[in-house]
Amino acid sequence: MTSLSDLSTLADVAALAATLPEADPAAREAADARQMSLTKPPRALGRLEDLAVFMAGWQKTDRPSITQAQALVFAGNHGICARGVNPFPQEVTAQMVANFRSGGAAINQLCRASGADLDVVELDLDTPTADFTARPAMTEDEVLKAMKIGAAAVPATTSVLVLGEMGIGNSTVAAALAAGAFGGAAVDWVGRGTGSDAAGKALKAQVIEDGRKLHADAAGLALLMAYGGREQAAICGAVIEARARRIPVILDGYICTAAVAPLFAQDKRFLDHCIVGHQSAEPGHARLLDAMEKAPVLTLDMALGEGSGAALALGVLRAALECHNGMATFAEAQVSGG
Amino acid sequence: MTSLSDLSTLADVAALAATLPEADPAAREAADARQMSLTKPPRALGRLEDLAVFMAGWQKTDRPSITQAQALVFAGNHGICARGVNPFPQEVTAQMVANFRSGGAAINQLCRASGADLDVVELDLDTPTADFTARPAMTEDEVLKAMKIGAAAVPATTSVLVLGEMGIGNSTVAAALAAGAFGGAAVDWVGRGTGSDAAGKALKAQVIEDGRKLHADAAGLALLMAYGGREQAAICGAVIEARARRIPVILDGYICTAAVAPLFAQDKRFLDHCIVGHQSAEPGHARLLDAMEKAPVLTLDMALGEGSGAALALGVLRAALECHNGMATFAEAQVSGG
Repeated sequence: MTSLSDLSTLADVAALAATLPEADPAAREAADARQMSLTKPPRALGRLEDLAVFMAGWQKTDRPSITQAQALVFAGNHGICARGVNPFPQEVTAQMVANFRSGGAAINQLCRASGADLDVVELDLDTPTADFTARPAMTEDEVLKAMKIGAAAVPATTSVLVLGEMGIGNSTVAAALAAGAFGGAAVDWVGRGTGSDAAGKALKAQVIEDGRKLHADAAGLALLMAYGGREQAAICGAVIEARARRIPVILDGYICTAAVAPLFAQDKRFLDHCIVGHQSAEPGHARLLDAMEKAPVLTLDMALGEGSGAALALGVLRAALECHNGMATFAEAQVSGG
Repeated sequence: MTSLSDLSTLADVAALAATLPEADPAAREAADARQMSLTKPPRALGRLEDLAVFMAGWQKTDRPSITQAQALVFAGNHGICARGVNPFPQEVTAQMVANFRSGGAAINQLCRASGADLDVVELDLDTPTADFTARPAMTEDEVLKAMKIGAAAVPATTSVLVLGEMGIGNSTVAAALAAGAFGGAAVDWVGRGTGSDAAGKALKAQVIEDGRKLHADAAGLALLMAYGGREQAAICGAVIEARARRIPVILDGYICTAAVAPLFAQDKRFLDHCIVGHQSAEPGHARLLDAMEKAPVLTLDMALGEGSGAALALGVLRAALECHNGMATFAEAQVSGG
């Protein structure tokens, strides 16, 4: 497939969908056959078996492995904060980026626990996107620029990519993207995000309905222009770049899943190499996962972002591959009944 | 509390319930206060916060940690297999024990992945318990002996105990214990276990109903005499010994949870220091967790036993403590809004 870095319009990006590499069916079949030979009842490892076969298809081998895991956290700021949708000041985005850099955030501990390297990429934090109730949050060029930054952050040889985000106000952007991609009332997609109360939640829904009046025609990748933001576009770029390199992706919770809703709405094949690490406590996430045909690996009542749920799921993915590669077969172990 | 090793009747064991050490409320409160000070919105780490506070209460410190994690897999054989409830021969129990010892089973890989030491304890595999449709599966002395073996297997200084089991036919024993403890029709507690088809499932339900006619009066710890088996009694013994030492316990799936149903039925306080690692794909487990007021950490559609789900949950518990101990506070990180 053509590289994202060579493209100059979102229509070009949309056209990539037809050129995407696909999971290798032979490797999937061979991995599945291996699972059936291991010393356990068929399917007794449930989701762990699915994860091993998933990795096999993208890595094109019946023995997939993780030699390096890369977590990327993209950070951006949002013009919609001018509407008062968030109780925290936008400075917190940069403060949390500093916290990521000094190792004090949840994602730092979770990456250490699951053996992932962590890079943080901030995108023009001093220049928030536009207020999407007044105009499109981003121009086409801004979206493309952020996408390319996201793509460039993907290491060429990583075995698996863990994606996360940080951006004060971006739970409102997430709900707007979800509503734009899948319809329904804004109130069905809105949760309390970070620290909003019931009144804050109602305001978020109102602000999103205001935006939808302005951007009623936005669809597919153009949703990124309508609602933003930069970290969402960067996540989309990283997902596309990973696909070109056959690197499986673990998406985080509500905001990260909503960030790629424009890719799904454009052509759902864009997300075949992506799994969702954790179902957020944000109520819109269950609805979104259903619409995007993704079953989360974990459901731990978290609602943090930062890639926290994806990093936790990496631990499960590692365990799945340990079983897949390390277990004895019935023949090797001389166990009856295989 | 009195040590299990000094007791000679199940009535003595039952009486331990009144002497159990309890979670330390001050340590729980201090751990909760620390969670509120960390650089994240309140409750944003969801279940991870609960796990950290749970560990704090049992370890009596606001900074709980895991210096060593011990997995114990108890193996036993069951007379009920004479009724044809399992498609695998009973020799598979010993064959799987050998597989555990040589490192080829799922639990070996999962313990390596989550950093647990693994001990396997087989209990008289050549002498299955009695067929519980003909007589009690075990005598009181046999139950006590197995309990004491379980208790003796708990290392004095481990930080957390991961419990699992192996025993051909023991999904039938699990359903019988669950039905005996909580009532309802056997068919509501029976699943396909390891490789049974619909007819096998119906036979399991019939066999359990036959047993219940004989053991209608069995309740509490006496359920272990009625239905067995040795690995179930050993798990109960390990749970009690862990409690005496304030060691938190991660139970595995359906069979391991059902193994401690007699403790719960006797006095539910026996299980205050236990969490359940994984909700099994066996349909009875959701019902059992509900009855025993336990929310599983993971739901990954597994149905293997061996302690597999508990070992996976240990990884989540470790991540929870990494966050609890490693994250910066709002003050330390100079982040606004804490």
